Amino acid sequence: MCKNFKIALCQTMVKDDKVYNLKKALEFIEEAAVNGANIISLGEMFICPYRNDVFKEYAEEEEGSITLKAIAEIAKKYNVYIVAGSIPEKDGDKYYNTAYVIGKDGNIITKHRKMHLFDIDIKDGVYMKESDTFSYGQNITMFDTEYCKVGVAICYDMRFPEIFRIMVQNDVKLVIVPAAFNNVTGPAHWDIIIRNRSVDNQIYFAAASPARNYDETYLAYGHSSVCNPFGEIIGQLDENEDILYCDIDLNYLEKVRTELPLLKHRRLDIYGINTKK
Amino acid sequence: MCKNFKIALCQTMVKDDKVYNLKKALEFIEEAAVNGANIISLGEMFICPYRNDVFKEYAEEEEGSITLKAIAEIAKKYNVYIVAGSIPEKDGDKYYNTAYVIGKDGNIITKHRKMHLFDIDIKDGVYMKESDTFSYGQNITMFDTEYCKVGVAICYDMRFPEIFRIMVQNDVKLVIVPAAFNNVTGPAHWDIIIRNRSVDNQIYFAAASPARNYDETYLAYGHSSVCNPFGEIIGQLDENEDILYCDIDLNYLEKVRTELPLLKHRRLDIYGINTKK
Repeated sequence: MCKNFKIALCQTMVKDDKVYNLKKALEFIEEAAVNGANIISLGEMFICPYRNDVFKEYAEEEEGSITLKAIAEIAKKYNVYIVAGSIPEKDGDKYYNTAYVIGKDGNIITKHRKMHLFDIDIKDGVYMKESDTFSYGQNITMFDTEYCKVGVAICYDMRFPEIFRIMVQNDVKLVIVPAAFNNVTGPAHWDIIIRNRSVDNQIYFAAASPARNYDETYLAYGHSSVCNPFGEIIGQLDENEDILYCDIDLNYLEKVRTELPLLKHRRLDIYGINTKK
Repeated sequence: MCKNFKIALCQTMVKDDKVYNLKKALEFIEEAAVNGANIISLGEMFICPYRNDVFKEYAEEEEGSITLKAIAEIAKKYNVYIVAGSIPEKDGDKYYNTAYVIGKDGNIITKHRKMHLFDIDIKDGVYMKESDTFSYGQNITMFDTEYCKVGVAICYDMRFPEIFRIMVQNDVKLVIVPAAFNNVTGPAHWDIIIRNRSVDNQIYFAAASPARNYDETYLAYGHSSVCNPFGEIIGQLDENEDILYCDIDLNYLEKVRTELPLLKHRRLDIYGINTKK
């Protein structure tokens, strides 16, 4: 099994224009692939402004999705995995905030529907109620690659330590999280959540945000980041449009787990995390 | 129920001299009590250098312990709770790294025996194997006060998110952790673990270290800290001997939990943390 590979996080600026957003995403993916990335992620809602009033209008059904068709073609053309950030997915009369994972052959490997919806009301800060539009995903999502097993979550899912424990119990070594924190929760919590999940679980943790668009009401934090299994942020963007590249070194991951054997030291005789499904 | 109270963390310099260490601890406790602290914590191994070659020599049995007797007297005198950092406890032919909790009446309320022993070997860094001396504690430890329920853990226990989830499921709102990170793991992980446990569980988190003693082989990180439920460090010492005071505001804790209802948003229908005992 290959011990080293390259990931790229595409932090695109998202406007109120699906054609523009998709074109921009494809340009960034192409650039990342040409530069040698093996796994490429887009940000949360890379296709659509992060607003309840437009999610349904931008939503696509899996069957016949123009966004997924374009992503599939470029994945196959460049022989790369793509975590297609997230898009509003329509399924019957329900809507989900969904990250599709496309394989090197252009087929859908799996999809993650956001499990924890972002309903928040900080006084003089940020108000958002995703559950006004979206239904809840019901699964923790992982997929196999020739590099390692990869976990996928979306934004607010980051805040719940249980799902990363379950991933690591299933041998995940890299987690990719399309996410759009904001200008309140970003400065307060983005780095420490990313770093502590990495430290606790001794994994690589990659969080891919959209760029900040000052024309929008929801100001994305940006700061797409990759953290190594010792809790060091090894790459981070600012709020502007850009691509973040990082090398994932699974030999280093094993070194960390050997020197500081946290996972072995868990008291699984005293506590455990279970899945109830 | 009183919504506000004051805690004090006594960061004493620990030398290879039990009489000196105990005297210093009592002086600091007295000062903290006179200054209005309601709950006072000492650091990990406040009575004893952090070295395998001296733990047994410094160890005390609960029955007849001169350290516990002195702590009990001062707790009763000043009507305060004391988390007596930790001491090496002898029980039959076994030894534990144990934090006794003394109530306002001078009685032992509970004790926490370190559950996760610190066995680490970082190349060109730090080597320590606590399990050469100590046996494993078997319980997650909490106690009731008139302020709120309080959880107690010791140092390396901090690294395991499960126990704080179990505490919060049991309505703990303040965790007190006597701890002695070192000059490698301290700069790397101390702040992010403290802050992220506070954010995830929306609790106050207080970590009490000994001061750094450059005459010792194990260089404690110091930096005793208190973090609020939004992940902000509201008080932190440097590596020198001092007392850290912080006000705990349970109204603020409720405000954080209302505005950003993380605990309510857990998907307990999908995952759960259980205790196996």
